Amino acid sequence: FESKLPNLGVSIFSQMSGLANEFSAINLSQGFPEFDAPDLLKTQLNYYVQQGVNQYSPSSGVPRLQQQIADLAKRKYAADINAADQVTVTSGATEALFVAIQTIVRPSDEVIVFDPAYDSYQPAIELAGGKSVHIALSAPNYTIDWQVVSQAITKNTRAIIINTPHNPSGKILQPQDIKALKELVGTHNLYVISDEVYEHITFDEQPHLSVLRDDELFTQSFVVSSFGKTFHSTGWKMGYCIAPADLAVEFRKIHQYVTFSSFTPAQHALADMLERQGEHIDELSGFYQQKRDLLASHLSNSRFKILPSQGTYFLLLDYSDVSDLNDVEFCHWLVEQAGVAAIPLSVFYQNPPTDKVIRLCFAKNDNTLIEAAQILCQL
Amino acid sequence: FESKLPNLGVSIFSQMSGLANEFSAINLSQGFPEFDAPDLLKTQLNYYVQQGVNQYSPSSGVPRLQQQIADLAKRKYAADINAADQVTVTSGATEALFVAIQTIVRPSDEVIVFDPAYDSYQPAIELAGGKSVHIALSAPNYTIDWQVVSQAITKNTRAIIINTPHNPSGKILQPQDIKALKELVGTHNLYVISDEVYEHITFDEQPHLSVLRDDELFTQSFVVSSFGKTFHSTGWKMGYCIAPADLAVEFRKIHQYVTFSSFTPAQHALADMLERQGEHIDELSGFYQQKRDLLASHLSNSRFKILPSQGTYFLLLDYSDVSDLNDVEFCHWLVEQAGVAAIPLSVFYQNPPTDKVIRLCFAKNDNTLIEAAQILCQL
Ligand SMILES: CSCCC(=O)C(=O)O
Ligand SMILES: CSCCC(=O)C(=O)O
Repeated sequence: FESKLPNLGVSIFSQMSGLANEFSAINLSQGFPEFDAPDLLKTQLNYYVQQGVNQYSPSSGVPRLQQQIADLAKRKYAADINAADQVTVTSGATEALFVAIQTIVRPSDEVIVFDPAYDSYQPAIELAGGKSVHIALSAPNYTIDWQVVSQAITKNTRAIIINTPHNPSGKILQPQDIKALKELVGTHNLYVISDEVYEHITFDEQPHLSVLRDDELFTQSFVVSSFGKTFHSTGWKMGYCIAPADLAVEFRKIHQYVTFSSFTPAQHALADMLERQGEHIDELSGFYQQKRDLLASHLSNSRFKILPSQGTYFLLLDYSDVSDLNDVEFCHWLVEQAGVAAIPLSVFYQNPPTDKVIRLCFAKNDNTLIEAAQILCQL
Repeated sequence: FESKLPNLGVSIFSQMSGLANEFSAINLSQGFPEFDAPDLLKTQLNYYVQQGVNQYSPSSGVPRLQQQIADLAKRKYAADINAADQVTVTSGATEALFVAIQTIVRPSDEVIVFDPAYDSYQPAIELAGGKSVHIALSAPNYTIDWQVVSQAITKNTRAIIINTPHNPSGKILQPQDIKALKELVGTHNLYVISDEVYEHITFDEQPHLSVLRDDELFTQSFVVSSFGKTFHSTGWKMGYCIAPADLAVEFRKIHQYVTFSSFTPAQHALADMLERQGEHIDELSGFYQQKRDLLASHLSNSRFKILPSQGTYFLLLDYSDVSDLNDVEFCHWLVEQAGVAAIPLSVFYQNPPTDKVIRLCFAKNDNTLIEAAQILCQL
C-alpha cells in the first residue's frame, strides 16, 4: 500500500504529548492550556445540550455565531464582514486551513510557506496535488526578507500562507510585512491564507495586524482563527474561516463534504460567550504576557538563551550552551531524563538549520511554569 | 476564480432544510431525528465538560472510546478489532468518508459508486484527483447486478464504495452481495469503503452484514460509522472509521491534518453511553421499524406507492400517480405549496432515471409523521 504522505508519521505534537505522559514529564510540548475554559462557556454548552439543540447546524454555522464573529471583526479590526456570506464555522482551525488549501490549490500549483511552519500546511498542500515552496526564517528574529519571497514566485505560485502571531516563533508581522505582502499579491494575483489563530495573544502593546484590517488584501484572502486558543478549549475543535463571498462559496462547497458542520451546542455557547463576556478576549494578551514574563524570569539564571516572543503562547529557547545534541535528540533526552517535554524546532522546517532551539508552551499554571523552569535551570 | 467543484452547489440537504424553515413546512428532507439524544449521553457530556476535560484528545481518539467501539464490533459482529491500532474517532462519518477516500484515491484512480449515492462520495473522490464511476440501481429494489460491476472494473479501478443499510433506498446488502463483492476485491485487488452509518437500524429481523464480519474482506476495507445516527445526536458530529492497522496508519496521517481530533468531552460521554446503555443500540431497529410502519400505514390510503425499506430512517415514495412534475419540481412544490419537505431521488444520481421517486425521513415524532401523512393523503 503506497502512502499518500510517505515522509510523514505521527505528528510531533502527538509524539511528544505521548512521551510526556509515558515519562510523567511536565508537558510544555503540544500547545494546549492547562487551565479550563471559562465557566460561562461550559454552562451555556450544557444549557443548549439539555435544551435539545443536538442536531445538525447549518453547514456554514449557526447564524448567531457567524454574526458574533463578524461583530468581533468589526470591533477589533474595523472590518465590515457579512456574517451570512463570509463567515464559515469549522471543526477547528485545522479543518479551516485544510479546506482553504483544498479550495485554491490545484495540481502543480505552488504555495509559499515560511519555515518554521505549522505541520499541517505542507501535507494539506500535497494532498491537493500542489507543492509547498519553503522559505526559511532564522533565529532569533524570524524576519521575512520579502526580496527573497519575490524571487521564489514563479508562474505556478498560487498562494502564500502567513501565520501571525507566528507559531512557533512568537513573531508578529509588522506594517512593512503587510505592505510587501500586499504588493506581491497584487502583482502576481496570489491568494493569501492567513493563519491568525493566536490573534488575541500579542504582547507589549503590539497590535495584531489582521488581514481583515485591509479591505483590498482581504479580497484575496482566507482568514483562519480558532476558539480553542481564545477560550482555553482546544478539545472542542471549534474554529472559523472568514473569506470574501466569492471565495467563501467555494470554501463552503468543500467544507460541506469534509465535515459538513461542527458541534451545534458549542456554537451556541460560543455565541453567548462572545456576546456576554467580550472582556475575556481583551484580557487575553495581558493574561499570557504575565505567563511569558514569569517563565522568562525564572529562566534568567539558566544556561538557556531566551528568544523574543511577541505573541502566541510559545517561547523559544536556544540550548547551545546546555547540550551538543541535535534538537530532536535533546528533546527526547529532556522528556525522558529531565522530565520536561518540549518541541524541537527542526521539525517545523523542510531543510532544518543547525540552530539549537526548542519551543516551550507557556499556557500552563504558574506553578507548572516555575517547576519546569527550576528543572531547566539545573541543566 | 475557477471552482474545484464547478458542478456542485449547496448540498440538497441544506437547500431543503432551508426551504422547510422558510415555508414552515414539516421537514422530512434532511436526515436528522426530531427527538433528543439519550439523557445519559447529555448528562455525561456535561460531567466531563465541568470536570475540565476540554483540551485535545489524542488524534485517533480517546482510548476508552476506541475500546468501546471495538467491544461493540465484537459483540455485534464477532469481529476481533484492536482498538488502539484500528479504530479512529472522527468528526462525523462525513469526515471519516472524506479521509478514507483521500487515503486511497490517487490521481486518475477510479472508484465505483452505486447510484443513488450519498452526495459526499463524488466530490471527495474528485478532490483526491480520482474519478467516480457510477452504477445506477433501479427502483423499487435497488438490487446490485454484480455482473455489471465486474464489467465496470478497469485497470484504474481502485476502490468500491458500498453503503448498507443504504441511504436513500433503505436496501440492505445480502449474503450473495458480500460474496460477489469479496470475489471482485480479491480478483482485482480493490479497496472497499463501507459506509455503515445506519448499521443499527435494520428491519424485519434482517441482520446487518457488516464488512467487519468477514476477516478477509476487512483486510482491504475502511468501515465507517456514525454516533449521530445511533444516538440521535447528528449535531455532535461524531463518527469513526475501523480499518486494518496498515490502512489505519495512513488514514490517521491524513485525519491528523484534516481535523486532528474531535470534541473531547463527547468522546468520553459516548464511551460511558456504550458501556452503560448498550440496550439503546439493541432497541434502535425496533424503535425505527415502528416509525416506518406508522408512516406507511398512514400513507396506505394515499396515491403514493410505498417502496420497501429494509433499514435506515428513510422511506421512498413513488409519486407517479400524484404529479407529472419531475422530482425536483415536485419537491419544490411539495415544500412550498403542501408544507412537507422531502428529497428528490434524482439528486443522488449522475444520470438520473425518469423515476418519480422522493425520499422521506421518518426519524420524527409519531404525531409529526401522522400530520405529514395526512397532508400527503390529500394530494
Ligand atoms: C493540533 S495539536 C498542535 C497544537 C499546536 O497548535 C501546537 O502545539 O503547535
Ligand atoms: C449531513 S446532512 C445529510 C444528512 C443525511 O445523511 C441525509 O439526509 O441523507
